[in-house]
Amino acid sequence: MKVIKDGTVTTAKGFLAAAATCGIKQSGKPDISLVASATDCTAAGVFTLNQVAAAPVLLDKATLAENQTAVRAVLTNSGNANASTGEPGMVNARQMQAWTAEALGCQANQVLIMSTGVIGQQLPMAKVAVGVKTAVSALSPDSGMAATQAIMTTDLVAKHLAVEVELAGGIVTIGGMAKGSGMIHPNMATMLGVVTTDAAVEAGLLQQMLRVANNHSFNRITVDGDTSTNDTVILLANGASGVAIDANNAAAFQAALTHVCTELAKMIVRDGEGASKFVEIQVTGAPSETAAHAVAQTIATSPLVKTAFAGSDPNWGRILAAAGRAGVTFDQYQTGLWIGVEDANGLQLVKDGTPTGYAEADAAAIFAAPSFVIRLDLGCGDAATTMWTTDLTHGYITINADYRT
Amino acid sequence: MKVIKDGTVTTAKGFLAAAATCGIKQSGKPDISLVASATDCTAAGVFTLNQVAAAPVLLDKATLAENQTAVRAVLTNSGNANASTGEPGMVNARQMQAWTAEALGCQANQVLIMSTGVIGQQLPMAKVAVGVKTAVSALSPDSGMAATQAIMTTDLVAKHLAVEVELAGGIVTIGGMAKGSGMIHPNMATMLGVVTTDAAVEAGLLQQMLRVANNHSFNRITVDGDTSTNDTVILLANGASGVAIDANNAAAFQAALTHVCTELAKMIVRDGEGASKFVEIQVTGAPSETAAHAVAQTIATSPLVKTAFAGSDPNWGRILAAAGRAGVTFDQYQTGLWIGVEDANGLQLVKDGTPTGYAEADAAAIFAAPSFVIRLDLGCGDAATTMWTTDLTHGYITINADYRT
Repeated sequence: MKVIKDGTVTTAKGFLAAAATCGIKQSGKPDISLVASATDCTAAGVFTLNQVAAAPVLLDKATLAENQTAVRAVLTNSGNANASTGEPGMVNARQMQAWTAEALGCQANQVLIMSTGVIGQQLPMAKVAVGVKTAVSALSPDSGMAATQAIMTTDLVAKHLAVEVELAGGIVTIGGMAKGSGMIHPNMATMLGVVTTDAAVEAGLLQQMLRVANNHSFNRITVDGDTSTNDTVILLANGASGVAIDANNAAAFQAALTHVCTELAKMIVRDGEGASKFVEIQVTGAPSETAAHAVAQTIATSPLVKTAFAGSDPNWGRILAAAGRAGVTFDQYQTGLWIGVEDANGLQLVKDGTPTGYAEADAAAIFAAPSFVIRLDLGCGDAATTMWTTDLTHGYITINADYRT
Repeated sequence: MKVIKDGTVTTAKGFLAAAATCGIKQSGKPDISLVASATDCTAAGVFTLNQVAAAPVLLDKATLAENQTAVRAVLTNSGNANASTGEPGMVNARQMQAWTAEALGCQANQVLIMSTGVIGQQLPMAKVAVGVKTAVSALSPDSGMAATQAIMTTDLVAKHLAVEVELAGGIVTIGGMAKGSGMIHPNMATMLGVVTTDAAVEAGLLQQMLRVANNHSFNRITVDGDTSTNDTVILLANGASGVAIDANNAAAFQAALTHVCTELAKMIVRDGEGASKFVEIQVTGAPSETAAHAVAQTIATSPLVKTAFAGSDPNWGRILAAAGRAGVTFDQYQTGLWIGVEDANGLQLVKDGTPTGYAEADAAAIFAAPSFVIRLDLGCGDAATTMWTTDLTHGYITINADYRT
């Protein structure tokens, strides 16, 4: 597997992209993003489980149920989430899809759409109409980066990546873009992703592979069933490489796909709203993977833990306290806790639920690093998980108290 | 029911209190608090469900299992939680209990203890020994306020209250004190409470009544099973009023007890770390009370919702988005949302999941108030609940990023 410098969603053969600025964002920044394939793609999607799923999420699910084998494009608007917008919001989503299809010269059910931004406001459709036309007319293999920038909201950094992987059968490319701000839950601030590949992958297999990749990447910074109104990841495969994925090369392709998704997920965390630290949370010795995930998730989202990270304060009691309220039964006198900068083998803080005789300065030095790893062993099983999170800072408050104003 | 001005844990007949400063807190503020009865009390307790329960919690549970009918005192230290301290922590908790009993001239199992403060450090027992002796020798009916102040940690305000209630049989008094900082979860920052009454209440009934009161008060600012390592509420009844609680007056006594606990719980929220707003969250139209509670809890703890409160920004989409990830199934197109300053009848923002034509300025005016009410109707049942929460501000970050330093 080889990382392609400056790789994007258009690095894989046969993909085009475009961006447009139509005034949905008050800031005047680009707010329409389009990724398209010159030929039909098989398509897969994973979506938010939120009960208040946005109109584009409901529409994409319906579209993929009709057509997973001849998808041509993903159109995204930023600045307005088209969520909590009722039936008018559904009408607008269908209109956006239809306009894009019309401009591309394909059927409506060959277009998927995504939205991100403020919830509860109707889309300014006259502006969207202009944006869609502008974007379609600007499609180019060189605009992957522009398309990436046009899906950003509170993101500070454009998140994109492409890899080339040599498979039995030939070389394929996988590229992707994502947006999201990983502070508390990327699931609350919307997470969107589009991944493209020139491999030829049968639709059922594609969906399965996206699900596996998602469980090891975007779901490690969020949690099943605990997502925003708009979270969506779309995977398009157009077969332009001439290489088909089959039993001989599926594992290698899966590994590359998972890598692309994991790197994009980590980029989201690193760009977390107001974040100054990147922290890997490992939970080991859990009775089940679900239990490990519940404990890791509770630690990774605890405001007290995250403010301790922000203060570079190795106040590890908060980590154990968070674990203890995760709804998982364990014996506190069997727990162990380690921290380190590179991996979790740096310093053991807790053994059998009791503080070790570690030096406070050593622990403080690790927590002062911009990136560190924590491992909590529950001592009651063999299951484990890893999640990625950030600290909770003044910057987060500033961004989110003033987001709409 | 009559509220007693400046009422405390010593307002009920036969109760004494004391405070001492023994150096557990670096700040030099009082850190030992004692509440005692001149005569034996029946006692009840509700405790954290956290798997990493602190040593004093484990000890009090064992003590109450042995003795619920002849309890004499509750000794609390602040500045150190004696949590995540392993077997040495249990030894220290037992020692603290034994020293208090010795100084009071009673048995160890007649004393309950509580601790609050930093997790994961052993208690400085030489200091505690001095503090216990000092407190016991200072017991006085006038020191209820001093005892209240001595349990504070990040609290800005001392939380205390007493009411007098005329029952069939005579007048009884109920007084209480509490500490806790209600920002994110009072469950994470420890919540402690001691409630005293001069009514005579049989131990089994006392426990049942405390459980009911707790479910309508402290559990409305926290959530079952989701509590800190140390959360404890103790209720002592010494019978000094000569009035026994029985079938004729139990309902009135329960109402007064619930009132005292609810007022203390609201004081904790109002004093939330960094809080500038007090918000009541009502969830109605839920399929069950558990579902209503889950939705209310998710809204009440959502960092995005709470930063919107801080910014006085009626960004109600975040409220619906939080509800949608609470694990409760509902139809977003049946939901309604109301906000108001005094009650939830002020302004309807959402009808059938769709924004109403409300004026933004009207919504902003309500969110700008220091205290307001939100009602989300899920439109799928008859169950309802109420919770109380605060906003999430820069002040919270400052307090918690620097708590130990």
